[in-house]
Amino acid sequence: MKTIDLNCDLGESFGLYTIGNDEAILDYVTSVNIACGFHGGDPLVMEKTVRMAIEKGVAIGAHPGFPDLLGFGRRNMAVSPKELKAYITYQVGALYAFVKANGGILQHVKPHGALYNMAAADYSMALAIAEAIAAFDKGLILMGLANSNLIKAADDVGIPRANEVFADRSYNMDGTLVSRNIEGALIHDEELCKARVVKMIKEGRVVSIEGAEISLKADSICIHGDNPLALSFACGLRERLQAENIILKALR
Amino acid sequence: MKTIDLNCDLGESFGLYTIGNDEAILDYVTSVNIACGFHGGDPLVMEKTVRMAIEKGVAIGAHPGFPDLLGFGRRNMAVSPKELKAYITYQVGALYAFVKANGGILQHVKPHGALYNMAAADYSMALAIAEAIAAFDKGLILMGLANSNLIKAADDVGIPRANEVFADRSYNMDGTLVSRNIEGALIHDEELCKARVVKMIKEGRVVSIEGAEISLKADSICIHGDNPLALSFACGLRERLQAENIILKALR
Amino acid sequence: MKTIDLNCDLGESFGLYTIGNDEAILDYVTSVNIACGFHGGDPLVMEKTVRMAIEKGVAIGAHPGFPDLLGFGRRNMAVSPKELKAYITYQVGALYAFVKANGGILQHVKPHGALYNMAAADYSMALAIAEAIAAFDKGLILMGLANSNLIKAADDVGIPRANEVFADRSYNMDGTLVSRNIEGALIHDEELCKARVVKMIKEGRVVSIEGAEISLKADSICIHGDNPLALSFACGLRERLQAENIILKALR
Amino acid sequence: MKTIDLNCDLGESFGLYTIGNDEAILDYVTSVNIACGFHGGDPLVMEKTVRMAIEKGVAIGAHPGFPDLLGFGRRNMAVSPKELKAYITYQVGALYAFVKANGGILQHVKPHGALYNMAAADYSMALAIAEAIAAFDKGLILMGLANSNLIKAADDVGIPRANEVFADRSYNMDGTLVSRNIEGALIHDEELCKARVVKMIKEGRVVSIEGAEISLKADSICIHGDNPLALSFACGLRERLQAENIILKALR
Repeated sequence: MKTIDLNCDLGESFGLYTIGNDEAILDYVTSVNIACGFHGGDPLVMEKTVRMAIEKGVAIGAHPGFPDLLGFGRRNMAVSPKELKAYITYQVGALYAFVKANGGILQHVKPHGALYNMAAADYSMALAIAEAIAAFDKGLILMGLANSNLIKAADDVGIPRANEVFADRSYNMDGTLVSRNIEGALIHDEELCKARVVKMIKEGRVVSIEGAEISLKADSICIHGDNPLALSFACGLRERLQAENIILKALR
Repeated sequence: MKTIDLNCDLGESFGLYTIGNDEAILDYVTSVNIACGFHGGDPLVMEKTVRMAIEKGVAIGAHPGFPDLLGFGRRNMAVSPKELKAYITYQVGALYAFVKANGGILQHVKPHGALYNMAAADYSMALAIAEAIAAFDKGLILMGLANSNLIKAADDVGIPRANEVFADRSYNMDGTLVSRNIEGALIHDEELCKARVVKMIKEGRVVSIEGAEISLKADSICIHGDNPLALSFACGLRERLQAENIILKALR
Repeated sequence: MKTIDLNCDLGESFGLYTIGNDEAILDYVTSVNIACGFHGGDPLVMEKTVRMAIEKGVAIGAHPGFPDLLGFGRRNMAVSPKELKAYITYQVGALYAFVKANGGILQHVKPHGALYNMAAADYSMALAIAEAIAAFDKGLILMGLANSNLIKAADDVGIPRANEVFADRSYNMDGTLVSRNIEGALIHDEELCKARVVKMIKEGRVVSIEGAEISLKADSICIHGDNPLALSFACGLRERLQAENIILKALR
Repeated sequence: MKTIDLNCDLGESFGLYTIGNDEAILDYVTSVNIACGFHGGDPLVMEKTVRMAIEKGVAIGAHPGFPDLLGFGRRNMAVSPKELKAYITYQVGALYAFVKANGGILQHVKPHGALYNMAAADYSMALAIAEAIAAFDKGLILMGLANSNLIKAADDVGIPRANEVFADRSYNMDGTLVSRNIEGALIHDEELCKARVVKMIKEGRVVSIEGAEISLKADSICIHGDNPLALSFACGLRERLQAENIILKALR
């Protein structure tokens, strides 16, 4: 039987500012990536979010980002590998403390936003992330874009990793994501999205934007939870996966 | 044989801004309290400071403060116990990650600045700090003002604690510090300072500002390292303690 | 004919985080207090909010707060008068630039949250605010709690000021607000709220919580806009004021 | 008679953290660029620095940077022109308020660090800066790298501008600075530095790194003040310029 993890970003509220549908989406996923206070999240939000995830039995990951709350971690920053490594250590440790204090287990680390994208494309950044994780706990899983430098760096450093795939994004022949600026980058047909996910999980393959099939290993599917449509799609995807006898379970 | 710990605050630089004589003071103390990024410190500074402390064999504590970099954590803030507890968990976890990643051991937690003073006087704040520490690791020592609510809260929560005393400050009859606004609060005679410390360690007593002797247990002495005079006093104090056959050693 | 200003807080969103119903509330008020980036707001939000207010012909005020985004400026902070004065200058200047760049006029300054409350009760803080405003532009109006130190400080410094009153709050005999912790502090009967406002405007009097009438000058009424009920009340209050032949107009 | 402006960056301290020799360098320059709280500086520092500059009769400019205190504004950030424009308006307004409150006049705006370098090379960023300045006050001078997009954007927008040159940097044939990574980028011979400056001012020409003379208009020379050697060079440069009958005066 095939298994798959469904993950989503969580705990990105800050102070009086709320964002996302954290409670609702927890019912649809098997893993969550919790913001660590740099691009979003704050100590009280982290405490509350970790507690909710533990109560719902959903696996927990740290979701470190750039120190750019104003840009929600979505803006590229020229951060050196040495700085980046320290940023990861800091954020993973902060989240770990909430998980440990509440009797949970930290499962993985998934970089956020611009950091995720930059590190997927830049091996030195990916390596800094993997090294930070390995130095803290060699058992933590690095979740990153399938086929990217994040996966390669995890392998090189010797820590477990999870290939993340996207249901609604097109892929290039080399397994990278088609840039959002290019026509066809986003797939709007929900049934097609579901079918692509099933194929990724069952066959480890997907049809690229050029039309040819490529290999694409899928360990976890990224689920968005920021609007009712996203929740509805998550619900539909779960049903389809269950109908295909694919088991939904956390990475570990 | 009597023993005593000498502690000082460290790692309070931020980005391009440097503060303190971190390398020099490490030779005079047995424990350091390392800033965690709220009132001072940043991930790179924490990494570097933790590494230096481990290399010198000095015991490491977390030094969490209020989220007020602009005020260096020295301004009172009306933070609720719930918020405070989360701030402590966050900062202790962040520092713990650097300590663990570098193969060290986290020994204690000492609140910083206005947080230290407020919690010493306010049991609900002291309790929030103690609870945060206990939830994360019941073996961590809470270092706080001798005789204060910080010590009481640690006892109530069931975690180890260390009474911190000051060589150059006067004490009231109830064991609290004489406010800096009151004449005689600061003791400028270095020889008298040293003699008071020796008496605290050997007899567990000190002469209060009113002139009567009071009980004052001393587990750790606070050493300042921010100017050449402070370093010189630290040096002189060490010599005096050694002459008195008092052993300088970390809390654990 | 009597006139009155209706004011509300605006532009408190930050980065990707949105808060408030800024566009909707603009139709109900004659003046707005725009956040300046310390407790809320950011440069893009300020630009957008200033532009909207100018387009709608609503008068603009700066809404400076404590440097505490995490606490939304609602937590007391021990800020010195000298620091506070500089914080006000900074924030008023920042907002002024957006107003001037968009061809508008800055009408007033209203402190936010904990700063508003602390300065209302503490003359030295109120004076620091009034002095900062006077040094920048002696024509700017200081809006503050009616009868409070903010009004007194403005008078002492020689700048215009506006007494702000609340429709849904009870008043003590000395004209101060009844603390929210005390039963009866909040008035839930909307018709009673409206009647109290009309009496304040027409007679300059209000019934205190003890039952006796007191003098209370009303230059501006604080309107909340953060939920549908608040908008509905604002709408009803406008109708009632118009029915009473009270003219709604900005302070200047 | 030829004239030249000498400028330096000032007011980059933050809270308890001090950086630079602000008081000493004020005696050597005719204009200063004062940090505005994003990459460095804070309201109290701005107040103090503006006051010192006015007392010494030195012309004042705003020195806006990226919102990256941790990186001191020296790290490239992917900020959109719209965001950048708002950041400039905000920071210029904040500094303007201190200048106006202290009876001074704001002379110019000079972008800081990574923002300066990015905008020199990227016309859309330069244009956003120039537009922000023009919208606030068409009389403010934009100071930027000689020959760069900053100068071009100021011309296109119709605001005055000042070409900044560097005494100790090599220039390419196209008038741009030789990258610091390339051998020969920095000129260490102080006499040669002075001679190059004199030639720039008197002839409007400099010898490029390739050896050929190029045109280079110099309105202002950047002076560093962060170490004793820099102060000593500033002193020597002033003497040389005076010996050459070049008049040192602010841009306006």
